[in-house]
Amino acid sequence: MKIGFIGLGRMGAGMASCICQAGYDLTVFNRSAERMQALVGAGANAAKNIAEVCAADVVFTMLADDKALEDVALGPAGILEYLKPGAIHVSCSTVSVALSARLALAHSQEQQGYIAAPVFGRPEAAAAGKLFMVAAGKRDLIESIQALLDILGQHTFIVSEVPEKANLVKLSGNFLIATVIESLGEAMSLVEKGGVDRHQYLELLTSSLFNVPVYKNYGAMIAERQFEPAGFAAHLGQKDVRLVLAAAEDLKVPLPFASILRDRFLNLVAHGGEDLDWSAVGGLAAKDAALLP
Amino acid sequence: MKIGFIGLGRMGAGMASCICQAGYDLTVFNRSAERMQALVGAGANAAKNIAEVCAADVVFTMLADDKALEDVALGPAGILEYLKPGAIHVSCSTVSVALSARLALAHSQEQQGYIAAPVFGRPEAAAAGKLFMVAAGKRDLIESIQALLDILGQHTFIVSEVPEKANLVKLSGNFLIATVIESLGEAMSLVEKGGVDRHQYLELLTSSLFNVPVYKNYGAMIAERQFEPAGFAAHLGQKDVRLVLAAAEDLKVPLPFASILRDRFLNLVAHGGEDLDWSAVGGLAAKDAALLP
Amino acid sequence: MKIGFIGLGRMGAGMASCICQAGYDLTVFNRSAERMQALVGAGANAAKNIAEVCAADVVFTMLADDKALEDVALGPAGILEYLKPGAIHVSCSTVSVALSARLALAHSQEQQGYIAAPVFGRPEAAAAGKLFMVAAGKRDLIESIQALLDILGQHTFIVSEVPEKANLVKLSGNFLIATVIESLGEAMSLVEKGGVDRHQYLELLTSSLFNVPVYKNYGAMIAERQFEPAGFAAHLGQKDVRLVLAAAEDLKVPLPFASILRDRFLNLVAHGGEDLDWSAVGGLAAKDAALLP
Amino acid sequence: MKIGFIGLGRMGAGMASCICQAGYDLTVFNRSAERMQALVGAGANAAKNIAEVCAADVVFTMLADDKALEDVALGPAGILEYLKPGAIHVSCSTVSVALSARLALAHSQEQQGYIAAPVFGRPEAAAAGKLFMVAAGKRDLIESIQALLDILGQHTFIVSEVPEKANLVKLSGNFLIATVIESLGEAMSLVEKGGVDRHQYLELLTSSLFNVPVYKNYGAMIAERQFEPAGFAAHLGQKDVRLVLAAAEDLKVPLPFASILRDRFLNLVAHGGEDLDWSAVGGLAAKDAALLP
Repeated sequence: MKIGFIGLGRMGAGMASCICQAGYDLTVFNRSAERMQALVGAGANAAKNIAEVCAADVVFTMLADDKALEDVALGPAGILEYLKPGAIHVSCSTVSVALSARLALAHSQEQQGYIAAPVFGRPEAAAAGKLFMVAAGKRDLIESIQALLDILGQHTFIVSEVPEKANLVKLSGNFLIATVIESLGEAMSLVEKGGVDRHQYLELLTSSLFNVPVYKNYGAMIAERQFEPAGFAAHLGQKDVRLVLAAAEDLKVPLPFASILRDRFLNLVAHGGEDLDWSAVGGLAAKDAALLP
Repeated sequence: MKIGFIGLGRMGAGMASCICQAGYDLTVFNRSAERMQALVGAGANAAKNIAEVCAADVVFTMLADDKALEDVALGPAGILEYLKPGAIHVSCSTVSVALSARLALAHSQEQQGYIAAPVFGRPEAAAAGKLFMVAAGKRDLIESIQALLDILGQHTFIVSEVPEKANLVKLSGNFLIATVIESLGEAMSLVEKGGVDRHQYLELLTSSLFNVPVYKNYGAMIAERQFEPAGFAAHLGQKDVRLVLAAAEDLKVPLPFASILRDRFLNLVAHGGEDLDWSAVGGLAAKDAALLP
Repeated sequence: MKIGFIGLGRMGAGMASCICQAGYDLTVFNRSAERMQALVGAGANAAKNIAEVCAADVVFTMLADDKALEDVALGPAGILEYLKPGAIHVSCSTVSVALSARLALAHSQEQQGYIAAPVFGRPEAAAAGKLFMVAAGKRDLIESIQALLDILGQHTFIVSEVPEKANLVKLSGNFLIATVIESLGEAMSLVEKGGVDRHQYLELLTSSLFNVPVYKNYGAMIAERQFEPAGFAAHLGQKDVRLVLAAAEDLKVPLPFASILRDRFLNLVAHGGEDLDWSAVGGLAAKDAALLP
Repeated sequence: MKIGFIGLGRMGAGMASCICQAGYDLTVFNRSAERMQALVGAGANAAKNIAEVCAADVVFTMLADDKALEDVALGPAGILEYLKPGAIHVSCSTVSVALSARLALAHSQEQQGYIAAPVFGRPEAAAAGKLFMVAAGKRDLIESIQALLDILGQHTFIVSEVPEKANLVKLSGNFLIATVIESLGEAMSLVEKGGVDRHQYLELLTSSLFNVPVYKNYGAMIAERQFEPAGFAAHLGQKDVRLVLAAAEDLKVPLPFASILRDRFLNLVAHGGEDLDWSAVGGLAAKDAALLP
C-alpha cells in the first residue's frame, strides 16, 4: 500500500513521520519544499506536485483551513483530478462541516474514497502517534485503513458513516476546549481579585476535580499569563469558533457560550493577539476586571 | 478533644459519621431529630439544642444556605452565644463570602476560633471521607484540627489566612462545574442535531480529553436526560451562581459565563425545575434547539 | 394641606421647588443643611429633623438608594415613627421592589398611607415640572394627591393598586434606557471601524427611526465620548441594573440583555468609571474593538 | 432619462410605482411576471429579461438577499454584462457589505456607475415615497440621480463615497431595530410577570420616553403576541443579524447584543418561526419566563 501525505505543518510533519517510521512507502508534499527534507532523510519520497502524491492508494491531508484544503483538493491540479478511482483521501484537517460534505460528494462522483479523520492532540502527540482520531466514512473504507489510523493515534473513534459528522465532532471538541479556557479565565480573575494566589488555586483545581491535561496545560498558561509561543494560534481558535457557529446556524442550534467566545476572540484579535496562543482568551476576563491593563 | 456537628443532611451525615468512626467524642445536632438516630446508634451523643453542642472544643456546621447558617451561628441561642473562648467553629457550608466574613469578625470579637472549610464532593465522597477540603483561617487554628480534616477529606487545600477566601474558592469551583454542565449541554445538542449519537459522543469525550468524573457523571445525566433524583438540586446550584455573581459584583469582576448560567437557572426554575438535579441546566440547550419540547 | 419633602439632591431640589412655587405650605429636610437654603429663600420651611417634616399631611421622599430610603423611612427616628395616621408617604426614589413592598406593609400597619411614585426625567425636567410620574397605590390615595403629581409631572401613569409595581416599572424603564446606550455603543463602534463618521451616523439615526431625546442625548454623549460631568452617575445606573436583575430573579424572568449590561457596568467601575455618566457604558464597545485604549 | 427597475416584491413594487407616477420612462423586470402587471397598467414597460432593463440609464435593484442580487447582477446574462458604460446601477437591497464591495469593483471595471442606496421603511412607506434613503458612492453619481432618490424617500443620507458603507449603515440600523424588539420583549415579560398589564405598560413607554413608531409598532405586536402576517419575516431578520455579525467579524468588533439576537433567531427558526414577523423574537423572553408555552 502506497501512502501520500500533503501538509507538513507542525501537526502533519509528526503524523507523516509516524507513517514513515512504520515502514510504509510514503510520498510527501508541502508547499514550502524545505519542510519535506527531514522526512526525505527518514526515507520518504518528496513529490513535486499534488499529482505525484496522488499516485498513492491512500492520501492524507493535514492543512490549516478551509481555503488551503479547498485549493489542494478541489482546485485545479488538485487531488480530485489525480486520485485514482478506488483510492482514498483521508482528510485530517479541522475544517468546516460544509466543505467536508462537498468533498464527500465530489470524491463519490469520481469513484474515489473519502474519509474525514480529524484529530485531537497537540504537535507532541502527533509526533508520538498518540493522537485521538475521530473518523467518519463508509465502514469498509475505514476498516481498510485502520492500521494507518492505529499508527497515528492511541485510539480511533468512529462516529458515523457520513464523513462530515467527524468534522462536526472535532469542531465541537475545540469549542469545549475553548469553554475551558474562558471558564478558567473567569474563575482565576475572580479568586485573584479576591486575594487568592492564582497558581495555588490552579493547583487545587487540577489536583481535585479537574485533574486532566486540558485544564492543567491551559490553566498554566493563563496563570503564567504567558501566551507565546503559540501552541495553537488564536486566529485558528477563532476560525474554529466561527466554524462551530456556522454549523450551529445551519442546524438551528443556539450556543450562548460559543457566542461569548466569538466576542472574546474578536476582542483579542482587535488588539493584535491573533498570533498568541488561543489561551490568551483566558486573559480577557482579567483585563475586564482591571487586573491587567 | 470533644467534637460537635450541626447539620446532618446528605453531606453532613456522612461527614459526622466519619468523625464518629474515628473514635472521637462526638455530639451531633439536627433540626429534625430523627436524622440523629443513626449516629447515636454508632456512638454519638444527640444534643437537644445548639447550646449542648457548643460544649465541644470544635464545632462543625454543614448547612444548606446562608439563612440556615446565619440562624444557627448568629441567631438567638446560636453558636456565637454558647461557644467557649478558644473553641473553634469550622464552617463547611457553601455560603456567601459576605456571611463568612461576618462570622469571622463575630467569632474574633468573642475570642472564638473560626475556620471556613467548605468541601468538594458528592454525598458518597462525604461518607467515605474522600472529600476535598478547602480551608482558610489562622494557620495555627487549622493545624490544630488537621487530624479532623484528614478524616473528612482525601486532601486539604489551605488557601488563605482569611477565612472567607475559602468560600470564594468553593463558589468559584461550583461555577466551574456549572460551566461544564452548560458546555456539555450545548455541545451535545449540536452534535445530536447534526446526526451523531450523543451517548457515543460522550464516550468519545470522556475517554479522551475529558477523562474525569465531573465530565463523565454530569455528561451521563445530560445524555440520559435523567435529572431525577437530584444529587444536587437546581435551586442550590442557582443559589451558588447567585453567590458567585454577588462576590464578583463586590470585587468588580465581570463574568460572562456566569451571567449565562444565571439566565439558564432562572429559565429552569421558571418551568418548575428547582428540585431537579442542577445538570438539568444542560438540557436547556436541547430545548432551545427544539430537540426537547 | 401641608407638604413635607425629604431629599434635596439634583432631582429632589427641583421637585420641591415646583411644589413651593405652586404656593403650598412646604417643609423640607436634607441631611446636608446647606441644600435647604435656596428653598427657604423661596418660602419653604427648613426642618431640623425628620420628625418636623412628618407634621405634614403628605411627605415626599427622593433619595439616592435603598439604604438612604430605608434609614429615613424605617430607621430610628424615621418617617414610620412620626408620620400621622392618615398622612401619606409618597416615595419617588428609584429603589428596589422589595424595599417598596416592605414600606407598603409597614405604613399599612401604622394606618399611614403609602404611594410609590418614581419618576422619569433628568434634573432639568424635575425643575420644570415636566417629569413623567409612575404611580401605584390605593386609588383614593392617589386621587387625593393628584394635584401635587400634576405639579411635578407632565403626566401621571397609574400602573397598579400595589405600590411596588410602580418601582418595577421604573426599574424596567431604566433598563430600557441602558439597552439604548449599549445598542448605540455597539452600532457606532461598528460603523466607525467600518469608516463611517459616527456623528453623521447618529444624525441619520435620530432624524429618521430614532427621533426621540433618549437616543439623541445619549447618542451625543457616546459620539462625543464625553462622559463628564455625569447627569446620572454610572454607579447609580449599575445599582438600577442590579435592582432589575434582583426583581427578575424573584420573578424568575431571564433577561439576557440585562446580564450583558451588568457585566458592562462591572467593567466600567472596575476601571474607575463609577462617577462618569452612565452613558460611558456605551464607550466599552469601542474599547473592545480597539477604537479606544 | 430612462429608468429600469428589477425586483417587484413588497418594497420594490411600491418604489417602482413612485417612479412611474413621477412620469419617468420606466421599464420593470421581475422573475414572476404577474407582479409586473400593475405597473404596466400604470404606464411602465415590462421587460422580458435583464438585458432589456439594462437599456436604461439608471437601473434600480431591490431584491431579497445576497444570492438573488448576485444572480441578477453578476450572474450570466446579468446586469454587469448588459449595462452600458456610464449607466448607473442603484442597489437598494439589504445585502452584505462584502457583496456590495464586489459589485462596486466589478462595475468600476466595466466603466459602469454603482451606488448603494439601501432604505429604511416598511412597504407602506415605500409606496408613499416616504422611505429614508441611505446612499453611498461617487458624489457626482449620487447628484445625478438625486431627483430619483427624492421621489423614493423623504430624505437621503449620504454616508460615504465608498458604496458598501451604505450597506454597513443599513445593516447596523436593522440591528438597532432588533435590539428594540428584544429589549421590549424582556421588559414586558418582567413587568407582566410582576403583575403589570403589558398593554398599559407599553402605552406608558411610548407616550413618554419612547414616543416613536419603531417602539410603538413592534411593541404593539409583542404586546398582542400577534406575529402574523409578517411585515418583515423572521428569516430576513435572521439574515440581517448574520450579515451584521459577518461585517463585525471582518472589522473585528465584538457585538454582545448582536450575539444574543443571533441565538434568539436560531431558537425561533428551530421552532418553525421563520415566516413569522421578526418581532416574534420579542416573544422568546416570555417563553423563557414560562409566560408562554
